[in-house]
Amino acid sequence: MIRMNHKTGLAVLAGLGGLTAASPAWAEVSAETAFVFNTFSFLIMGALVMWMAAGFAMLESGLVRSKNTATICLKNIALYSIAGILYYLIGYSLMYTDVDAGWIGSLSFLYNPSDAEIALLSAEEATPELITAVTDNGYSSMSDWFFQMVFVATAASIVSGTLAERIKVWPFLLFVVVLTGVIYPIQGAWTWGGGWLSEMGFSDFAGSTIVHSVGGWAALTGAIILGARKGKYGPDGKVHPMPGANLPLATLGTFILWFGWFGFNGGSQLALGSAADASAMAIVFVNTNLAAAGGVLAAMAASQVVFKKIDLTMALNGAIAGLVSITAGPDLQNHLWSIIIGGIGGVLVVASVPLLDKLRIDDVVGAIPAHLVAGIWGTLAVGIFGAGNLGVQIVGILAVGVFVAATSAALWLALKFTLGIRVSEEEEHAGLDTMELGQEAYPEFGRGSQAI
Amino acid sequence: MIRMNHKTGLAVLAGLGGLTAASPAWAEVSAETAFVFNTFSFLIMGALVMWMAAGFAMLESGLVRSKNTATICLKNIALYSIAGILYYLIGYSLMYTDVDAGWIGSLSFLYNPSDAEIALLSAEEATPELITAVTDNGYSSMSDWFFQMVFVATAASIVSGTLAERIKVWPFLLFVVVLTGVIYPIQGAWTWGGGWLSEMGFSDFAGSTIVHSVGGWAALTGAIILGARKGKYGPDGKVHPMPGANLPLATLGTFILWFGWFGFNGGSQLALGSAADASAMAIVFVNTNLAAAGGVLAAMAASQVVFKKIDLTMALNGAIAGLVSITAGPDLQNHLWSIIIGGIGGVLVVASVPLLDKLRIDDVVGAIPAHLVAGIWGTLAVGIFGAGNLGVQIVGILAVGVFVAATSAALWLALKFTLGIRVSEEEEHAGLDTMELGQEAYPEFGRGSQAI
Amino acid sequence: MIRMNHKTGLAVLAGLGGLTAASPAWAEVSAETAFVFNTFSFLIMGALVMWMAAGFAMLESGLVRSKNTATICLKNIALYSIAGILYYLIGYSLMYTDVDAGWIGSLSFLYNPSDAEIALLSAEEATPELITAVTDNGYSSMSDWFFQMVFVATAASIVSGTLAERIKVWPFLLFVVVLTGVIYPIQGAWTWGGGWLSEMGFSDFAGSTIVHSVGGWAALTGAIILGARKGKYGPDGKVHPMPGANLPLATLGTFILWFGWFGFNGGSQLALGSAADASAMAIVFVNTNLAAAGGVLAAMAASQVVFKKIDLTMALNGAIAGLVSITAGPDLQNHLWSIIIGGIGGVLVVASVPLLDKLRIDDVVGAIPAHLVAGIWGTLAVGIFGAGNLGVQIVGILAVGVFVAATSAALWLALKFTLGIRVSEEEEHAGLDTMELGQEAYPEFGRGSQAI
Repeated sequence: MIRMNHKTGLAVLAGLGGLTAASPAWAEVSAETAFVFNTFSFLIMGALVMWMAAGFAMLESGLVRSKNTATICLKNIALYSIAGILYYLIGYSLMYTDVDAGWIGSLSFLYNPSDAEIALLSAEEATPELITAVTDNGYSSMSDWFFQMVFVATAASIVSGTLAERIKVWPFLLFVVVLTGVIYPIQGAWTWGGGWLSEMGFSDFAGSTIVHSVGGWAALTGAIILGARKGKYGPDGKVHPMPGANLPLATLGTFILWFGWFGFNGGSQLALGSAADASAMAIVFVNTNLAAAGGVLAAMAASQVVFKKIDLTMALNGAIAGLVSITAGPDLQNHLWSIIIGGIGGVLVVASVPLLDKLRIDDVVGAIPAHLVAGIWGTLAVGIFGAGNLGVQIVGILAVGVFVAATSAALWLALKFTLGIRVSEEEEHAGLDTMELGQEAYPEFGRGSQAI
Repeated sequence: MIRMNHKTGLAVLAGLGGLTAASPAWAEVSAETAFVFNTFSFLIMGALVMWMAAGFAMLESGLVRSKNTATICLKNIALYSIAGILYYLIGYSLMYTDVDAGWIGSLSFLYNPSDAEIALLSAEEATPELITAVTDNGYSSMSDWFFQMVFVATAASIVSGTLAERIKVWPFLLFVVVLTGVIYPIQGAWTWGGGWLSEMGFSDFAGSTIVHSVGGWAALTGAIILGARKGKYGPDGKVHPMPGANLPLATLGTFILWFGWFGFNGGSQLALGSAADASAMAIVFVNTNLAAAGGVLAAMAASQVVFKKIDLTMALNGAIAGLVSITAGPDLQNHLWSIIIGGIGGVLVVASVPLLDKLRIDDVVGAIPAHLVAGIWGTLAVGIFGAGNLGVQIVGILAVGVFVAATSAALWLALKFTLGIRVSEEEEHAGLDTMELGQEAYPEFGRGSQAI
Repeated sequence: MIRMNHKTGLAVLAGLGGLTAASPAWAEVSAETAFVFNTFSFLIMGALVMWMAAGFAMLESGLVRSKNTATICLKNIALYSIAGILYYLIGYSLMYTDVDAGWIGSLSFLYNPSDAEIALLSAEEATPELITAVTDNGYSSMSDWFFQMVFVATAASIVSGTLAERIKVWPFLLFVVVLTGVIYPIQGAWTWGGGWLSEMGFSDFAGSTIVHSVGGWAALTGAIILGARKGKYGPDGKVHPMPGANLPLATLGTFILWFGWFGFNGGSQLALGSAADASAMAIVFVNTNLAAAGGVLAAMAASQVVFKKIDLTMALNGAIAGLVSITAGPDLQNHLWSIIIGGIGGVLVVASVPLLDKLRIDDVVGAIPAHLVAGIWGTLAVGIFGAGNLGVQIVGILAVGVFVAATSAALWLALKFTLGIRVSEEEEHAGLDTMELGQEAYPEFGRGSQAI
């Protein structure tokens, strides 16, 4: 039953009017129509995922202190740019070409439209042969590239927040070059490229492990090697809060991420050109939304219980954790599960933040709880509630974790002992904006940051 | 006549190439293709409406004082979460199942994909029978749920702004539980669920009354029962302005709402799978944009005439009032009317704000003028300019108004005399952020709010 | 090779299952389906371009000083409103009706749905004749109008930033009336309306010249006639920086523009209803993203080399310049070129900013480098790397430039000697917000702006 607008009756009848039992083929989606649907879905959903880069930028801008805000803005737009170019230059080929149940794709430089597409676009007339040669692929080659590219950018976005306020700009960006050009694509090949994990049956619909945990491991190793911000942890183990300068921006960033996540998870259906795909995509949208909602409310409740206050930052990270948690399996047909899965994600955030502090791992924005912990949980949840095998899910989590943690740690250490990754104490105290960029994010607003 | 890009000629020819008089059926949209269009439209348009939640959050964040900003952020993300979960648990069933020209749907818990969809998605092979069983519905069940859910969230978003800066967090959220789980769905059933108002011919395309006035009535009764902010109205009747802390955020929020409104009104065509639906949706987009534009310029002009200054806040609320005004009937075929309807909405905002102040009803963000007053006007306008009957429109406005005002007032009073709804004077003076959340929205920026 | 989600196999098979050699027609896109695709693409892509208005508003809000922030917000929402109404009243007809290889369309007031569409929407039943009469046009009339309207708004948005902080509100808005109602449509008719430049073969896919340079010329002439802000240039030629008050907002604005640009360039394919169009649109998305990424990284590198610091504002303008640069020819089939074209755009920004300062042309946000300089470069690039003829491209750049610069200059001068365009020194010093609007953008945040 739907809204009873007058136009609808006419309109739906117009769509269905010619359908008879004698024309079953006509009732279906033509190959070219399906191609357009699939391609358009990749583009629109991919654009929504691109928009998540703005979400990370705003979330992190809101959660750092004002003296480091311009720098985090710069890092975010730069890392998104690097991810796109590196994935074009080499990443996509490492992830998706000739993986054949193996460990890595064959390296080839650049990635351009298929020969069939160029032939069609260059032709004077679109012949059936030219069209069929293109539509046989199911979707346009570059729409797929675009959609996969925004995912690697997401993984990179996760890292910048954790390491904010004390990492040098250029070494950080060098890390992003390797992460997006090599590390992410290799582990991505194992599952999404059709490699060995995929053969085992590892199931990660939109990337709780492959995107979010990858970013989380890179962030965790970086945070350990880089060390905490000066003054964050007292000699007595006391934690000194360093509150973010602009919480409405952090809220905006979270809403952007939530909005973009419909593209992230919905687009990961990877097809739209059939009733089955469209129905499945709708299920994914609903689960995505409910899991985020569950994460918010669970984090608020847990924060009320544990801290006797409702912490806005916890609620925001609860939304993100809910979203990450459902990302491995948003195709659940009973939506109640997604509220529970997301809610557990939200509770895990509230539980993990003090734990990290106890370990003196300084995560400025809470990305490790929201992306790594919730990513692991979401991947396990597929084995518990969904279609996955729990043992295989654990193998996938461990394999990706060991690989990314090891390569990231090696890279961080290499950078540390060559270029150096940490700004001087003086720079850290004065703020990265003045020292690295020579500008202030809010030059006119009264600042108490010097005192912190 | 359109832009003369070289590719276009080829492309459109490719699309039309096979059309001949002998194949009329082939020229139409297949049932499965229409299903995909309708479903995808619900999802994309619904995502745009979800994004409006961010718009309300930013608008309200910008228009409250800094000491209450984190709290309003928290309320906005929490109310959106609650709306989604409550509408899943019970709201949708109350609104859309077995209403049968009556007053309320039958209550059932949870709402999951249709059996036909689960059968199709679980099948090894998609047989024509399985596909037809799904496509007979016209759209995927969960895409419709998603689209309807974001509307209830919009109604709830309207309430938070009016009551900002003095309402307690948890009681407010309890109100949202009942509003989104019970009050909104019941009145929604009367029209969109196919109930008695729908039978009478009440016409409200996308919800000037059903969404915006509902939020407005809940806000108005709340504002009366809660009372004005301390110091807002002097004993001599003098109004003390309490300016918002961050007008660019309020501007951003308005732009987000405008952008999202294309989904709100456009998606309310409820179908895309035919030339008639697509043409109608385009008409809706154009009217939506022109009405908002008319609202802005009329509010600016009125503000210049009345206050001798162009007030930014009035311009922003003019945009919203224009949008609300056209929402009941954005299917007008003469677009000039929509400029006029939106413009009148903009003038009504400028006229209503001082009126509310005279009545000492303290609406922090101007939601009552923009959503309730303009919502009533827009619903009447359908009877004046559009396809509706003016008498029936008035019946609908009154019926919904009486029901929502009565139930909301009862609920506000019940909350007032149990949990209490208002923070203490001390908390109000210090700001809700410090007292309820224990954090500040802008800890480093100089604050004059204490003095206000 | 794509991600191996279980559902996909089924889904794509469902879409392709009925395709056989015996049913070639069935394999194509029906005329009505293509109509829906084309129309929906205009609407969604147009909405993304509308969203760019928010991007300009945030970019400019972030780059002006706080005392002028509310005013720039007002100008941005007002100019978008004016653009829509003027383009409805007269602009579209001047640009697109009966241009016939000439210089200007025939003037007619208002623009409403086609007779065929109204007949279909008013019919009791959608007959094949009624449908065909509508679908013969390829797309819905109002979806095309909507898409073209948001482009004229973009051109107007460019002007406000350059002239910020010293121009009066109402005269600026009067300029926008003429720009969007007359100047833009006339030059637009020459190419996109099918006029003389189109006949010559001038190629500007999405408007490097027709939109961005037009805005840039209007801004440049305005900046010269209006003069620099007081104190910007010392008597000794020294440039006094006047840093923007809120760089995260400027960053957000840039991300919004980037996101919206997928609609700007992608939608300019003007059709979606075939495999060729969908493939072409995917190519456009990829080039758009890579050019922006190239612009960011090149501007960062150039800024590091020239200024020994990485300037965030340069990186942001680098993104915009990259986007503008690719806009004339985003259909390149070798994506490597788009990185280079965008990268050159980014370098041009870094080179142009000091040049403008040397000429004492005060461009508050850097719109002239990013839109005019990069727009010229992008249009030339089509002649160098793409399908265009370099000589014809130069003719187009000059013709549009001379026409827009001359008419804009005449209009600015006429406004200057009638209403006056510049606020008083006292108003400029105090800030436009207090003087023109009587409100402050950030009333509670400590302000150093008075001292600047």
